[in-house]
Amino acid sequence: MAGSDSYLLERRARLLGPNVPTFYKNPVHLVKGEGVWLWDAEGRKYLDCYNNVPHVGHCNPRVVEAIHRQASALNTHTRYLHEGMLDYIERLTATMHSDLTTAVMTCTGSEANDIALRMAEVVTGRRGIIATDATYHGNTALVSQLSRSNVPEGGFGLSEYFRHIKAPDSYRDADPDGSLFADAVAEKIAELEKSSHGFAALIVCPFFLNEGFPTQVEGWLKPAEEVVRKAGGLLICDEVQSGFGRIGSHFWAYERQAVRPDIVVLGKPMANGHPVGAVVSSLEIMTTFRNGFRYFNTFGGNPVSCAAAMAVLEELQEQQLMSNAQTVGEYALDRLRELQKKYECIGDVRGNGLVFGAEFVLDKETMEPASEFADTIVNAMRHKGVLLSKLGRYKNTLKIRPPMPFSIENATLLFDTLEEVLAIHEIRR
Amino acid sequence: MAGSDSYLLERRARLLGPNVPTFYKNPVHLVKGEGVWLWDAEGRKYLDCYNNVPHVGHCNPRVVEAIHRQASALNTHTRYLHEGMLDYIERLTATMHSDLTTAVMTCTGSEANDIALRMAEVVTGRRGIIATDATYHGNTALVSQLSRSNVPEGGFGLSEYFRHIKAPDSYRDADPDGSLFADAVAEKIAELEKSSHGFAALIVCPFFLNEGFPTQVEGWLKPAEEVVRKAGGLLICDEVQSGFGRIGSHFWAYERQAVRPDIVVLGKPMANGHPVGAVVSSLEIMTTFRNGFRYFNTFGGNPVSCAAAMAVLEELQEQQLMSNAQTVGEYALDRLRELQKKYECIGDVRGNGLVFGAEFVLDKETMEPASEFADTIVNAMRHKGVLLSKLGRYKNTLKIRPPMPFSIENATLLFDTLEEVLAIHEIRR
Repeated sequence: MAGSDSYLLERRARLLGPNVPTFYKNPVHLVKGEGVWLWDAEGRKYLDCYNNVPHVGHCNPRVVEAIHRQASALNTHTRYLHEGMLDYIERLTATMHSDLTTAVMTCTGSEANDIALRMAEVVTGRRGIIATDATYHGNTALVSQLSRSNVPEGGFGLSEYFRHIKAPDSYRDADPDGSLFADAVAEKIAELEKSSHGFAALIVCPFFLNEGFPTQVEGWLKPAEEVVRKAGGLLICDEVQSGFGRIGSHFWAYERQAVRPDIVVLGKPMANGHPVGAVVSSLEIMTTFRNGFRYFNTFGGNPVSCAAAMAVLEELQEQQLMSNAQTVGEYALDRLRELQKKYECIGDVRGNGLVFGAEFVLDKETMEPASEFADTIVNAMRHKGVLLSKLGRYKNTLKIRPPMPFSIENATLLFDTLEEVLAIHEIRR
Repeated sequence: MAGSDSYLLERRARLLGPNVPTFYKNPVHLVKGEGVWLWDAEGRKYLDCYNNVPHVGHCNPRVVEAIHRQASALNTHTRYLHEGMLDYIERLTATMHSDLTTAVMTCTGSEANDIALRMAEVVTGRRGIIATDATYHGNTALVSQLSRSNVPEGGFGLSEYFRHIKAPDSYRDADPDGSLFADAVAEKIAELEKSSHGFAALIVCPFFLNEGFPTQVEGWLKPAEEVVRKAGGLLICDEVQSGFGRIGSHFWAYERQAVRPDIVVLGKPMANGHPVGAVVSSLEIMTTFRNGFRYFNTFGGNPVSCAAAMAVLEELQEQQLMSNAQTVGEYALDRLRELQKKYECIGDVRGNGLVFGAEFVLDKETMEPASEFADTIVNAMRHKGVLLSKLGRYKNTLKIRPPMPFSIENATLLFDTLEEVLAIHEIRR
């Protein structure tokens, strides 16, 4: 590690406190980004195969220009009239199913999920929320409780109206048509209905990205949606990670699931890193929410945020980045499948569009997770100039989720490097 | 109202839902800002006497340039190393009392208050929070409950561990040294201690801005702080509105109160409208929080946000804007006091630095609030090209809180216009 980096780590400990995570055993000190590339302080270039927030590429000129132009003209809150937010919401909701016509703009996906749960509460008059046990929906006091790993030690525990179901896992627990998942949802609904809380909503990432993006047929979530509807609950789709064309085949992952969410939550890639999020719903749900709660967000929907978000939509369309995600994603899966045939350590290969990865196991028969090995590979890749990460219940699945302009050429470099690294590092049992 | 404005209102209703507030009977359609000036779509110029978010002036060139420069170079999250956030936190905490050395960067003051309450919980092992009954601390599901007006009709009501005390009101309820306020805090602490929740923290804006910024001697909050300390609770100062030199005499309003908050919460003006907030605490409190909760904020502390926030600190210092606030604030109070002598409708005049206002009453003897009259004045001022608002328990107090470069000349225009408007509009009982 460079001396300057250990000085930065010392400053972090002093100014941020302990346990503020960095990536990699030797954290990367970044100074510059452009497209799918990042540079560190020593001028070393990295291929970014991880970051989904700079959706249309690091420092995308159209987005930077939009921010600069609008920040130079006007930046204020939404108690004055301004076209920016209205134009954006019109264009955004035009990409969604016909009931989804209104939005609340926020600054983060966390704020958006925090609103979505309140919408479910005020619309249904009930409070019970169901989520998977390997999910993440943000960092507010309310929604952080949806992540089981976020419950503080010695704290007050989970709110009693949250219920968790086992996350889908296409590699280890077959559920080909989603009916077992639907059964699990039904069981938790029955439990909530017996309690004083009742059942308000199921909240899921429709691509189950944090859960390790299991392989699913189109419409896999439909049985669960039916169970939710029958119980008079809402379906909240958290598209913070899966949306905006990421999965290649559809602009929203809920479309691939063939469901019609009542509420869609957006964040991270929405404005390429500028802090923007949103909750989208029908006018009916929005009306109930707006009549029930007085909600105002000072920065939410400001003209600069909306200009940045609009530039992302324009860039996605003009550069045909969804179709790029589809093409490059197919190539990536082919390469991963080849590696799987060659290497005993790759138990499963999964992905859609520009989210893909491989699950490392110690043995293909027993499927025993190779978590440490995954860590070794991630760190070895970083030293070869390729940034990626891992995720999943066993932290043994490569998480590859690059900016959307990621090309076949970039993917070739990624997989050539991965093959090199796999050839060097042998799994030791 | 221009036809285009009613079209924008129709679009707002359709795309945002009902009850999304705008200012003024005829909302203003803004297109441009510069310094203390705003322009509408028809080219009309307004003196901005209201907006505190564009702290160093609308479209401040230094801030715009900092955003543009950093957005062009790199914008990413804090799991990589970067100097931006560390440099900023170092410079920010250097302005605060010696225990306050660490920070969590967020995107909004709401997110920051949401963290502050969790810090109080994990540090004390208790949950009870005390706030005033006329305050506002943000919009998350948790902190929105601190505002009594935000509790939904037909919803689930206030969390049982929040307690509200009557907001200070120097005009109607004398409490010259803050001892009555301290007594009220002590009473609620006793109540919480008898419950299962215990007492965790008192959260206040140390300038009581939403409460109508009562006139207070320096150190008025000290008796309440002593009561909090004796009970082993924390003092959280929400400086979202009162900080960054706004009150003229001190950089932080808690300094004028001569207290040493355990936690300071920041937001709105911090980066001149770019979505940035922060929670500042001692390393000890931060360590307990970081060990108790896994907190990560994707956009929080990103290099662009930190560059914008740093530019605000630099601009404040180089333009000596705190001292400007002090000078112009004194002139403003003089002008308000002259008006008070002349007009029966002005019951009280209050303020410090660049937050000031006048309380309208129907009768100086009875102090009966003139809420409708205040509304008339605010709207008449808007039509004369001066933007301000009203606040307080009775919504009868002018809220004047301009960007910090507001000059004596600007204040002269404001008060000359106010005098014109007062001369035209007679109070009708």
